[in-house]
Amino acid sequence: MMRPTHGGNLVWAAAVAGCSPSEILDFSASINPLGPPRSAIAAIQAHLGELGAYPDPNYWELRTALGQWHQLPPEWILPGNGSAELLTWAGWDLAQLTKTFFSTPAFADYYRALKAFGAKVQECPLELEKLEDRQDACPTFSNSLECGLLLNNPHNPTGQMFLRETILPYLEQFALVVVDEAFMDFLPPEQEQSLICVVQEYPNLVILRSLTKFYSLPGLRLGYAIAHPDRLQNWQQRRDPWSINTLAAAAAVAVIQDREFQQRTWKWLPSARIELFKGLSQISGLRPYQSSANFLLVQTEHSSSTLQEKLLQHYQILIRDCLSFPTLGDRFFRIAVRSNTENNCLLQALLQQLAIS
Amino acid sequence: MMRPTHGGNLVWAAAVAGCSPSEILDFSASINPLGPPRSAIAAIQAHLGELGAYPDPNYWELRTALGQWHQLPPEWILPGNGSAELLTWAGWDLAQLTKTFFSTPAFADYYRALKAFGAKVQECPLELEKLEDRQDACPTFSNSLECGLLLNNPHNPTGQMFLRETILPYLEQFALVVVDEAFMDFLPPEQEQSLICVVQEYPNLVILRSLTKFYSLPGLRLGYAIAHPDRLQNWQQRRDPWSINTLAAAAAVAVIQDREFQQRTWKWLPSARIELFKGLSQISGLRPYQSSANFLLVQTEHSSSTLQEKLLQHYQILIRDCLSFPTLGDRFFRIAVRSNTENNCLLQALLQQLAIS
Repeated sequence: MMRPTHGGNLVWAAAVAGCSPSEILDFSASINPLGPPRSAIAAIQAHLGELGAYPDPNYWELRTALGQWHQLPPEWILPGNGSAELLTWAGWDLAQLTKTFFSTPAFADYYRALKAFGAKVQECPLELEKLEDRQDACPTFSNSLECGLLLNNPHNPTGQMFLRETILPYLEQFALVVVDEAFMDFLPPEQEQSLICVVQEYPNLVILRSLTKFYSLPGLRLGYAIAHPDRLQNWQQRRDPWSINTLAAAAAVAVIQDREFQQRTWKWLPSARIELFKGLSQISGLRPYQSSANFLLVQTEHSSSTLQEKLLQHYQILIRDCLSFPTLGDRFFRIAVRSNTENNCLLQALLQQLAIS
Repeated sequence: MMRPTHGGNLVWAAAVAGCSPSEILDFSASINPLGPPRSAIAAIQAHLGELGAYPDPNYWELRTALGQWHQLPPEWILPGNGSAELLTWAGWDLAQLTKTFFSTPAFADYYRALKAFGAKVQECPLELEKLEDRQDACPTFSNSLECGLLLNNPHNPTGQMFLRETILPYLEQFALVVVDEAFMDFLPPEQEQSLICVVQEYPNLVILRSLTKFYSLPGLRLGYAIAHPDRLQNWQQRRDPWSINTLAAAAAVAVIQDREFQQRTWKWLPSARIELFKGLSQISGLRPYQSSANFLLVQTEHSSSTLQEKLLQHYQILIRDCLSFPTLGDRFFRIAVRSNTENNCLLQALLQQLAIS
């Protein structure tokens, strides 16, 4: 079986570990360990009787609910079958431009979406040392008026969050700016740096959001794009008419109103992340990077793919190697922040494994 | 609210009828009235605990199950988020060719998928009179070696089924032949005319199948393409990695093994269709066409859009106008075959409505 290019591939992990997929302790997918919220499961169960009807192709109820959540008219929001589907259509728009800049290391699916329709790309390495010093590590670009820019905020896999003010000038420099904010909702409202609040001023801005990570529903597939209605209507005319299934749409409406789950997540994450960061810092040969998201990038003196294999075989623990991030290669791995107990299991396993290697 | 271009838009229908969507008796979407099968709902409930994990991006279990069902290796099958998603990628392949022929009247979503990536198209009218005489109504084509062909078998909205032998010569004449067999499973194995049995001989053949109609799961979204593994791998590299949600994949594995539901459907349809056909034939001003599928095309001396509105307002019954089939226009409507009781409700409503108009 081929080594996967994305976290969360439990079928592959279970084959390596020699156990069943459900026995894997998965640190490779950056999913909220507190979920899925009960409100999601209840909404799914309440809508099982509606599977015999087509979804409303305008998804008006869902768009209205998302619009209320973000204080935007529903026309500015297009739900999709995971934000990955919407990334495909952003990839189409980017392919119409002269070139698309994107910062590396970058999420493997960006390569897929940019390649899908033949977008010309130019990679711009983030300076990891600047990240370490908490400086602004965003690259600068020149001659970009006919070009696109694909950004990720907070950035995966580093966890770095760029300030809104850092990104705003790009909107004057680029024909199209796509900002993937898949992990932004892990920041509470007073700390987040989303561009949603300015989207109505910039027809050249596309924001991609996911409900998969925060609400632990990657099996359900649900994301949305926020952009000018003309652009979204154009995407909608190109893609299939019912791309979100009835159960996913119902769960989405429920979870964005689940204040209790949101508060609980915002309370859990900062302290769990600090503890995990501390624990990693104390293990010789490992160097974690500061993160604003629910995952940590870790530099290692040992081969991360070997480490991944050993952790699977001996502890049934799955970490995310960084081989699919070409600029990082075999000296980095990424881990999700999970519960304190689970994080301690990982720390113990790493300690033991690195002591004998 | 705009008149929908596809059946099953209950949100629109409910607004016209002044009732709730669940109160509409829907003849507009060609969905099996016996479903969804209990096996589908049970499978969904059994997999609710797995939503916190990503689906296997290779969907190996699902592909294996579909492969066993069709006696094909799993590599020849690619599941999708409804066959509409796969039609989009077929539309990409067709757009690479000089021209695509397709027969009209045609399903509105074909126009969408062909337009999505700018395929050049040539419409070939089916001869409805030939259909009436049960002759072979498939058009003939010339100069087609660099062209594509998009067919539909059984044909929507006429219900005409073309014999396998009618289609086979096209595979020698066209660079790519896409056959949408969304309604083929309504025919029992001894009567169906699917091209699945020859797919391994023709790398230029794509077959699209749906689980939505036969198993009454349009809200769940599930279809699949059957074609040469190279082509499917190409599509898979272009589209998003997890396009089928966990619950849909689980339901699909369950329903294709549900022999009881299949037998029950095959037993119900022929007699219900004959009864409905007879009833329609006896109503003055209506002329139903013979059909091999679970729907009937009906020619009417009255405006079908007016009739649709009246049936909604007075009987909360939704029929499918044919305005989105440009060659049919306002003198045709399409209805799904439902249970005998429901079909009689429709016949009564039509009788009463046409008597006063």
